[in-house]
Amino acid sequence: MQVKTAAGVKDYRTIWMEGTNVNMIDQRALPHRFEIYSSRDHRETVSAISNMTVRGAPAIGAAAAYAIAQATFEYNGSDMKSFIKHLDSASALVKQARPTAYDLFYAVDSIMEKIHGADSPKHAKEIAMKESHLYADRSAEACKRIGEYGMTLISNGSSILTHCNAGALACVDYGTALSPIRFAHRSGKKISVFVDETRPRLQGAKLTAWELSQEDIPYFLIADNAAGYYMKKGEIDMVIVGADRITKDGSVFNKIGTYEKAVVAKENGIPFYVAAPESTWDPSLRADDVIVEERSQDEVLFIDGTRIAPQGCIARNPAFDVTPKKFISGFITEKGIVKNIIVKKKR
Amino acid sequence: MQVKTAAGVKDYRTIWMEGTNVNMIDQRALPHRFEIYSSRDHRETVSAISNMTVRGAPAIGAAAAYAIAQATFEYNGSDMKSFIKHLDSASALVKQARPTAYDLFYAVDSIMEKIHGADSPKHAKEIAMKESHLYADRSAEACKRIGEYGMTLISNGSSILTHCNAGALACVDYGTALSPIRFAHRSGKKISVFVDETRPRLQGAKLTAWELSQEDIPYFLIADNAAGYYMKKGEIDMVIVGADRITKDGSVFNKIGTYEKAVVAKENGIPFYVAAPESTWDPSLRADDVIVEERSQDEVLFIDGTRIAPQGCIARNPAFDVTPKKFISGFITEKGIVKNIIVKKKR
Repeated sequence: MQVKTAAGVKDYRTIWMEGTNVNMIDQRALPHRFEIYSSRDHRETVSAISNMTVRGAPAIGAAAAYAIAQATFEYNGSDMKSFIKHLDSASALVKQARPTAYDLFYAVDSIMEKIHGADSPKHAKEIAMKESHLYADRSAEACKRIGEYGMTLISNGSSILTHCNAGALACVDYGTALSPIRFAHRSGKKISVFVDETRPRLQGAKLTAWELSQEDIPYFLIADNAAGYYMKKGEIDMVIVGADRITKDGSVFNKIGTYEKAVVAKENGIPFYVAAPESTWDPSLRADDVIVEERSQDEVLFIDGTRIAPQGCIARNPAFDVTPKKFISGFITEKGIVKNIIVKKKR
Repeated sequence: MQVKTAAGVKDYRTIWMEGTNVNMIDQRALPHRFEIYSSRDHRETVSAISNMTVRGAPAIGAAAAYAIAQATFEYNGSDMKSFIKHLDSASALVKQARPTAYDLFYAVDSIMEKIHGADSPKHAKEIAMKESHLYADRSAEACKRIGEYGMTLISNGSSILTHCNAGALACVDYGTALSPIRFAHRSGKKISVFVDETRPRLQGAKLTAWELSQEDIPYFLIADNAAGYYMKKGEIDMVIVGADRITKDGSVFNKIGTYEKAVVAKENGIPFYVAAPESTWDPSLRADDVIVEERSQDEVLFIDGTRIAPQGCIARNPAFDVTPKKFISGFITEKGIVKNIIVKKKR
């Protein structure tokens, strides 16, 4: 993604490795300050995942892969058995950084599988470094293709609503929902974006707004309550959102509020697209199987440290909702645009 | 409404007159502090309307009526002509306190009409005092009846979603949407309430939550985005909201976000009721005639003084939306419960 810095516009990934340090854009400081956090070992990377310095499923996956690579370099001996023991304990630590993030497990397991093929710790270090970079590259490449395919859906002059941050910051680069928007803008199409602020964590106001402003893509920030108003008024031509997980029957788990937007979009005849890499599909999963995580009440009761509700107030705070397939016009994946997709088996 | 004070539970109106002072619960201090603001003349009352010490259409109407009564006492002579001139200038000031509030005009004009029948300033003062008290009493009585009728719709054990604050704080007493909830609770029905926080101004989190907690009515505060989730999950049995204005064709102007909740309620087969006194109907109005006020961007960009969006961000902030009649199960008025009402002429 492009970032305006004192030295001019520069291209950044959300997360990348430099030597054995893992660098990441510190998402806790945005939108007010652009800061790079540099973690020196796998434990610091795990903390950065836990405290949301880095967030978003694909970005967390890359962070986890890099953390394993870091862990290989923290071992100085040559005994393969105790080396693997060290890595198993690092893997366990990484996997519990954000227990509900599927990408965390997937990334750790796929890097560890490759490492098990090594014949020495030295060889394993080479493999881990190469594979973690490949993991991040493939993730970025998938998002790039989502953008290239998705931009064909966006007409010149159109206005797109997005919810939460499914941008470059949630991925290694480009984003999922924001990638088609980014590519449409870069291709010279005149577009504008309505950004739901996305309570309770305000990822729209803090992250999506920041990303769009870095590339001078015109946008309006709105309260989540206002999306339906602009849909009904005819000011929104399409909706693109990301996804945390997509079930066998095509139901989409995504940030709380996605379902409402989808229902109101359908009522108003507005196309509603979900942009996600194929790795988001979980063919073993049915919508009814998933228990939605209810997060801390404090995310609702406090905004940036200021209490908004009376003492004694009980808040409920579901992190995700489920949007059934009937509300979804199509899926934008790295393989192309598909409608009413049903995935038969895991790739 | 009942308020928990250091001296025990006490009954309060939102606004009342004591001598020539107008007392009101200071809504800017809620939910953190319960304070009474006492205005000494009509100018201070106008300021209290402007700066939202008092808000909510019926409460603003009562404040305006009381402001005119105050203005009569600020004139010391006996010349009827210059007295009326003084009142005309006071009326003009009151009417521009919140330019979009219909109740402001209605209250001022109805008190002034009565005053014009007086034969002396002294007589006018008596009339103004009596009529402004009557105005407030009638407003409270209408809300009480809304509660008595509306509570019959609420089954024991049910869960009700409400949006914004259509409570006693928005009225002289009882509230519109909250009145049926209040009476159902007082009658011993076991109910619980889902309270939308209602961005951007957070009237749900700050005012509705506070009102419910004062009467120990069980409630959950939720982000606006979560309402659809709980509707789909079957945890919400009905929706009750207030209204700012209702058109000839039965379309409801109410706080931004009402439309989304109504669409999602219909999708899930959940009854959606609008509670409002008959004075809310404007038979001369069609939905397309109303231009929705877009309020200050800062209400979106800042929360309690803290900026949530990047520099240079443009926000859009419509105050109201329009919910077409087809999404509304019925109206709860002081005359009873009516479905698909079409008002032929103004009472």
